[in-house]
Amino acid sequence: MTRILTKLNELHIISNGKMPIEQLREILIDIHPYVTSIHLREKQKTARELFQAVDLLSRDIPLSKIMLNDRVDVAFAAKVAGVQLAYHSLDQAIVKKEFPSLRVGSSIHSFQDGENALRDGADYVLFGHVYPSLSKPGKTPKGIEELSRVARLPIPVIAIGGITPENTKPVIQAGVNGIAVMSGVLDSSDPVSAVKAYVHALKDGDGKR
Amino acid sequence: MTRILTKLNELHIISNGKMPIEQLREILIDIHPYVTSIHLREKQKTARELFQAVDLLSRDIPLSKIMLNDRVDVAFAAKVAGVQLAYHSLDQAIVKKEFPSLRVGSSIHSFQDGENALRDGADYVLFGHVYPSLSKPGKTPKGIEELSRVARLPIPVIAIGGITPENTKPVIQAGVNGIAVMSGVLDSSDPVSAVKAYVHALKDGDGKR
Repeated sequence: MTRILTKLNELHIISNGKMPIEQLREILIDIHPYVTSIHLREKQKTARELFQAVDLLSRDIPLSKIMLNDRVDVAFAAKVAGVQLAYHSLDQAIVKKEFPSLRVGSSIHSFQDGENALRDGADYVLFGHVYPSLSKPGKTPKGIEELSRVARLPIPVIAIGGITPENTKPVIQAGVNGIAVMSGVLDSSDPVSAVKAYVHALKDGDGKR
Repeated sequence: MTRILTKLNELHIISNGKMPIEQLREILIDIHPYVTSIHLREKQKTARELFQAVDLLSRDIPLSKIMLNDRVDVAFAAKVAGVQLAYHSLDQAIVKKEFPSLRVGSSIHSFQDGENALRDGADYVLFGHVYPSLSKPGKTPKGIEELSRVARLPIPVIAIGGITPENTKPVIQAGVNGIAVMSGVLDSSDPVSAVKAYVHALKDGDGKR
């Protein structure tokens, strides 16, 4: 099959809220050229700390690559790309209406969630967890079959949860637009090599579609 | 002395974050006609819960009387009067610039804080705690003298902390624009009588200035 356009699969990196922001910054400076988006998921940080974190990161990393978890106000004020919303966040339809400049990602756990996100104008969905994940101990992963179903929705789908370079291919083959990774890169002793392995896996996965 | 205009002292009620919102609502329905402003200070609530709380309260209480603690995004989306910002919140100058429709109150603990709030465009300051307060155990109250100093700043000053109807007069005589009360009304077995006692004390204090 001849491919006229190669879709570039997205690679999102999610912070784990456990790393000092200076340490996170040093890793992100090295890896950001390889990634689509960096999500600050720092649930313990106050609004002021989060704003200051963005301010620090923005010296080296384009704001257009930064997404904030939940805090729409900080995202808007700090002029990052957008917000990743969870079930406990402001409603995505309200955020799209009141903050039209922000890109809105919706964290979803089912096909039904995906339909709602589509209806409410989310720009993409983050679906997971696909594989067993250390950050979701004891919870049954959604698996590739459910991922394939979600991926048929007419909205960009980013897969998350237990994704390694080795198991990326079936995820991409399920028809998603990219993957999101937390521990696989940020907990690695060599984040640059780790992120390059993901990039390679994403290209590989794409080539086989 | 002939008074042409009687300044109306403000009465702010601050929620304590411990009461189910339905219970808070029942109290607020009764007392809101007597108060200037109702602050939802519900630190444990998620953005979604806070938005839903405002939605519920707004059936009976004017949005123009509701202030939210810290969550600028929810305040903006829910169209309440404004936000009360603390040291951990987004910077007040940024909030005034990015969310010009919101009234911004700044929680301050010193004259210097008050000067900063004035410089940064806060609409008023909440200064305290003035008297020993159950919600600030072991912390030295600021006292009436420091309150008088803050009250000379050219910005509206609302006093908070341990204020009862009995000790309201010296607070008003210090030159503030009003008081804020948490437990004195919401923990009362008869919130309506409690709020009326404060209203009476505020008028009394004003008459003696």
